[in-house]
Amino acid sequence: MSTISIPSDVPSPEEDCNKLWKAFKGWGTDEKAVIDVLAHRNARQRRAISEAYRRLHRESLLDRLRSELSGDFGKAVVLWAQDPQERDAKLANKAMKKKDERHVLMLIEIACASSPDHLMAVRKAYCFLFNSSLEEDVEDHFAKQESLRRLLMGLVTSYRYNGELVDEELARSEAATLHDAISMKQPDNEEVVRILGTRSKSQLKSTFNCYKEKYGTSIDEDLESSSSGDNKFIPVLKVAVRCIESPEKHFAEVVRSSIVGLGTDEDALTRAIVTRAEVDMKSIKEEYKRYKTSLNTDVIGDTSGYYQEFLLALVGWAIP
Amino acid sequence: MSTISIPSDVPSPEEDCNKLWKAFKGWGTDEKAVIDVLAHRNARQRRAISEAYRRLHRESLLDRLRSELSGDFGKAVVLWAQDPQERDAKLANKAMKKKDERHVLMLIEIACASSPDHLMAVRKAYCFLFNSSLEEDVEDHFAKQESLRRLLMGLVTSYRYNGELVDEELARSEAATLHDAISMKQPDNEEVVRILGTRSKSQLKSTFNCYKEKYGTSIDEDLESSSSGDNKFIPVLKVAVRCIESPEKHFAEVVRSSIVGLGTDEDALTRAIVTRAEVDMKSIKEEYKRYKTSLNTDVIGDTSGYYQEFLLALVGWAIP
Repeated sequence: MSTISIPSDVPSPEEDCNKLWKAFKGWGTDEKAVIDVLAHRNARQRRAISEAYRRLHRESLLDRLRSELSGDFGKAVVLWAQDPQERDAKLANKAMKKKDERHVLMLIEIACASSPDHLMAVRKAYCFLFNSSLEEDVEDHFAKQESLRRLLMGLVTSYRYNGELVDEELARSEAATLHDAISMKQPDNEEVVRILGTRSKSQLKSTFNCYKEKYGTSIDEDLESSSSGDNKFIPVLKVAVRCIESPEKHFAEVVRSSIVGLGTDEDALTRAIVTRAEVDMKSIKEEYKRYKTSLNTDVIGDTSGYYQEFLLALVGWAIP
Repeated sequence: MSTISIPSDVPSPEEDCNKLWKAFKGWGTDEKAVIDVLAHRNARQRRAISEAYRRLHRESLLDRLRSELSGDFGKAVVLWAQDPQERDAKLANKAMKKKDERHVLMLIEIACASSPDHLMAVRKAYCFLFNSSLEEDVEDHFAKQESLRRLLMGLVTSYRYNGELVDEELARSEAATLHDAISMKQPDNEEVVRILGTRSKSQLKSTFNCYKEKYGTSIDEDLESSSSGDNKFIPVLKVAVRCIESPEKHFAEVVRSSIVGLGTDEDALTRAIVTRAEVDMKSIKEEYKRYKTSLNTDVIGDTSGYYQEFLLALVGWAIP
């Protein structure tokens, strides 16, 4: 459900490298050429371009992009040019260093809105890039926030069963467990963390459905009115539930929040579009319609220049 | 550090299949031919043989081996013929169903004596084979053994940094944390689980060294005299430490224990030899010398027939 458009006759990585090399040459940069190449290649193709670039020009394409491009456009292209697993490993690392709510949510997105295989690949890339494991850094950085630490550990270390099989009876019993914990104002108890951190996404979706059927309100709504000793915990738990249940809803909301109000949160907008363009951007755009506008229209309204052009290419605006 | 010997001119998978097919034909089985092919092929080659066998004969090689061979020999060949990750996923699943100490130790071996990448592959295979994740089954099966469950979860979900970099100061401080917990008779506290479940093996080896240097006794020895509410916990923790610190020592001990005393524990002997032949059997044989005998001699003394012949082929007895 990717929204990027790839030409039917893709140039070789070497041809793409030459085009980029020419775009970088002399004073200034031919930004249009950069968009023309990179925004229309998938992750595998971008990787091949990076490798060819290093071979042909003995420098890192990423470093060159960093020095040639600037502002939000530059940040977006650099994020897009990386291997998805390395990109997410770096985002996770940054999230842990910052530790504020906004950044912790990035970590939750990576843990809960990724496929199990992608999360594994991110953990692998993390060890390679940072000489430590993702989980030991979670333990170190959140040592003093007991509930949050336990939740994050459960989520980042999971490798969920990725199939469709669901145990309906288990869904009913675990919906009751979740409801008990939340209604007793103990959303951070071990059972909640165990259920969210180990069950498959299909199983959890069924559990959340049972919850709503049996208790009349969704787990989301009940969490809203719950509380926990750690005031960061509830918002984080809500995003985890949302990213497991419906990542497209979550990312539609991220894009929308980045746009409404005064100014634009370009970092959030870039991150949502870059990380989801090849995953589920089509569904995100469908979800977005509930704001009575289209994602394309909002991006056009709130961005400009090459940054706008690049984001629109990723969300498939150029598709006839 | 594998001990199996592979002919320099390896037959094609199809030729190997034909040899096996002939070995199965008619009354009885040509066990020698089975050993001759399978004991002298590495995991990748055995996989190619299995795939070719299914293609050529429209049946599973594993099923055929199960029906052709019997006793300890049959069990050993069937274990050996599987993909290492599938084999270990099945051993882990069996371990959880049995839940006695002896089987829990198998789970610890898989979690702590495997490379991080192998453990990941086992988790992947587990989901594929059992339609549930390894970690959700650990949670379910050990729900009532709080300390053990937490330890097992930390170990099976880890993807440790696999490099050599060590933080000496951290090693000293975590050696003190471990010592405090053990001397306060709280070996099952969260800090112990965190350290053993997340740090890299190089880091942990350095921590165990600091422990011995600073306190005069090894963590192993101190654990011996410690206690925990759950009487399964200490032996399991000891094996975890041993498998992280020196898997070759652990498996030398497993082989030795399977042999000494009345009768032989063939299941343990088979498992140790089959699972480590391609990993570190050379080092295990070196370690084994501390029993003033050789592993080969002990195997010869306690086994017979095709079973003996097969094990000896795996431990490299036939190497000139």
